[in-house]
Amino acid sequence: MSNIKLNSGFDMPIVGFGLWKVDNNTCADTVYNAIKAGYRLFDGACDYGNEKEAGEGVARAIKDGLVKREDLFIVSKLWQTFHDAEQVEPITRKQLADWGVDYFDLFIVHFPLALKYIDPAVRYPPGWFVDGKEKVEISNTTIQQTWGAMEELVDKKLTRSIGISNFNIQLVMDLVRYARIKPATLQIEHHPYLTQPQLVQFAQDAGIAVTAYSSFGNQGFIELDMKSALETPLLFSHETVKSISDKHQKTPAQVLLRWATQRGIAVIPKSTSEARMAQNLDSISFNLDQSEIDAISALNKGLRFNNPLNYGIPLPIFA
Amino acid sequence: MSNIKLNSGFDMPIVGFGLWKVDNNTCADTVYNAIKAGYRLFDGACDYGNEKEAGEGVARAIKDGLVKREDLFIVSKLWQTFHDAEQVEPITRKQLADWGVDYFDLFIVHFPLALKYIDPAVRYPPGWFVDGKEKVEISNTTIQQTWGAMEELVDKKLTRSIGISNFNIQLVMDLVRYARIKPATLQIEHHPYLTQPQLVQFAQDAGIAVTAYSSFGNQGFIELDMKSALETPLLFSHETVKSISDKHQKTPAQVLLRWATQRGIAVIPKSTSEARMAQNLDSISFNLDQSEIDAISALNKGLRFNNPLNYGIPLPIFA
Repeated sequence: MSNIKLNSGFDMPIVGFGLWKVDNNTCADTVYNAIKAGYRLFDGACDYGNEKEAGEGVARAIKDGLVKREDLFIVSKLWQTFHDAEQVEPITRKQLADWGVDYFDLFIVHFPLALKYIDPAVRYPPGWFVDGKEKVEISNTTIQQTWGAMEELVDKKLTRSIGISNFNIQLVMDLVRYARIKPATLQIEHHPYLTQPQLVQFAQDAGIAVTAYSSFGNQGFIELDMKSALETPLLFSHETVKSISDKHQKTPAQVLLRWATQRGIAVIPKSTSEARMAQNLDSISFNLDQSEIDAISALNKGLRFNNPLNYGIPLPIFA
Repeated sequence: MSNIKLNSGFDMPIVGFGLWKVDNNTCADTVYNAIKAGYRLFDGACDYGNEKEAGEGVARAIKDGLVKREDLFIVSKLWQTFHDAEQVEPITRKQLADWGVDYFDLFIVHFPLALKYIDPAVRYPPGWFVDGKEKVEISNTTIQQTWGAMEELVDKKLTRSIGISNFNIQLVMDLVRYARIKPATLQIEHHPYLTQPQLVQFAQDAGIAVTAYSSFGNQGFIELDMKSALETPLLFSHETVKSISDKHQKTPAQVLLRWATQRGIAVIPKSTSEARMAQNLDSISFNLDQSEIDAISALNKGLRFNNPLNYGIPLPIFA
C-alpha cells in the first residue's frame, strides 16, 4: 500500500517529503531531486519559510517533464496568525502563488489556536510573537470560525482536502461535531518515544488519516539544541531499533518509517542525501513482524519535543 | 484564605465536601454532619446519584437552624447526555428540585463531550452507555452550543456561576474565545501523581479557579478495584508525604490538601468519619514550606485514574 485513501476521496502517498528545516539555499534542488527520486508528496508550511523555493523545484521538475502537477500531492499549512476567518483565503492565495500552483492537495490548520493577525508585508513568515521577539498575542477567533473558512477553500477549489495538526482529542471530538467537511488528516508528532496510541486509534476510527511528523524522534531536534532532545538516546542507535534493522538488513530510519506506515500512518521524512531519500521512500518494501512493531511501540515514554514551551513560547497547548 | 474569589464575583470556599461515592443510605446524614462540622461547599453531580439525599441533609440542617441557604455553596454538574442545548435547562431544574433549592452556586459541564440524550424517566442517572451496558452513542452538539445553554442558566438565575470539568487546555483556549460568560472554575483530577502544572497555571492565569478532585490520588479508586490504583503506592503511606506530615504533626490527608490549597487550588475531599471531616476542613490552618510543596509536586508521574477508559468506556478523552 503506497497510498492512503482520504475521506475526501483523494489518494495521499503514505511516504512523503517534509520541508521543515530545509534550507532556502538548497530547497529548490532538494525538491527537484526528491521528485527525481520518486517522491510525490511534499509537506510544506508558511512557517517553514521556503514555499517559494519549494515551488521553484516543482516548476523545474514539471518543466523538465519529470512529473505533471496532478502527479504531485502538495501540502501546506495555515499559520495561526491567519486564523481570523477573513484572512484564510488571502493567505492561502499568497501561499499558492509562492508555490506557483493553483490548488493545494491538502491544506492544514497548523496549530489549534488563533494568534493576532500579522500583515505579511510586515513580517513573513510571522512566527509566534507579535513583536517578533517574545510577546504572544491571541486572537479571539474560534476553531469553528477558522474551520468554516477552511471549508470555503475546498468550495473554491483552492485545496482538495483540509486537515488539522497538533490538535488533541477533545478538540477533534468537538470539531467533527460542527464540521461540514471533516478533516481528511491529523498530523501529529509520532515516534517511538511519543506513540499517542489512543489519539491515533481515535482518529483512524473516525476516518481521519494520521500523518506522523518527526518520525525519527529527537534526531530532528538535536540541531535546534533542544535540551530534552540532547538528553535522550538517539532512536537510530537504540538497541531495539538497531537489532530489528540488522535483522531485516534495513537502516534504522527505514525501520522507524515502516513501524508507522505498517499501521496506516503516513510519514514525511526529510533528507538531503540522495541515498537516504531513496531508502526512506523504499521503506514500504519490507514488513515488520507484529512482535517487532510492539517492541518499538514499547519504547513510548510520552516524550514530546515539538512543544511551543520548548521554544520559549508561553503557550502550553499540550497540557 | 478560606475562600477563592471567582471571576463571577462570588466567593467559593477553598475546602469543600465531595459527594462522589457517598452512599445513598448515608448521604443525608453525611451532608448534615458535614454542615455541622463547618463545611459550606458541597460538590455534587447528577452522575453521583445522590442529589435528593444530599438535599435532604441540607434541608434538615436549614430546618435545625445550622445554616441558611445563602451560607452554603452548592455545586452540581451537567451530565453529558444532557449537553443538547434544549436539555440543559430542564435537567438543571430537575437537579435543583432534587436538591430542594432554587439556585446552584456553581453548575459545571462534567465532561467535554456530548452523548445522546437519555430521558430521565428511562434511566437516571443515565451513565455513559445509551443502553445502560456497553454502547456509547454521541450527540452532535458542540461545546459552544452547550456552553450557550449554560450561560442562559446564569441569565435565568438558576446558577450563580458556571464552570467546566475534565477539559484540557486546547478546549479551554477555544471556549474562552467564544464564551460570553467565562468559566468560573475548572475542576480536574489533581494529586501528587498527576499534578498537571501547565494546565493549572494556564487556568489560574486566565482567571479560572482550579478545583482538584481525587486529592488523595489512587486512594479513592482502590474501592473501584482499578488496576492502576491497586498497583500504585498509596500517597497516605508515601515516604515523602509521611515525613512532611510527621514534621507538621498533621495527617497525610491534611498535607495533601494543604499542598493544593496553598497554591490556590480548591479541594473537595470526602469523608464519612467526623474526625477526618474536621481534620480535612482544618487543613488550611498550617503552612508547608516551599521546599515541601516542591518535594510533593516532584512525585508527579502523569498518572491519571479517572479516565473513562479505566471504566471500560471507549472514549479516550485525555489523549
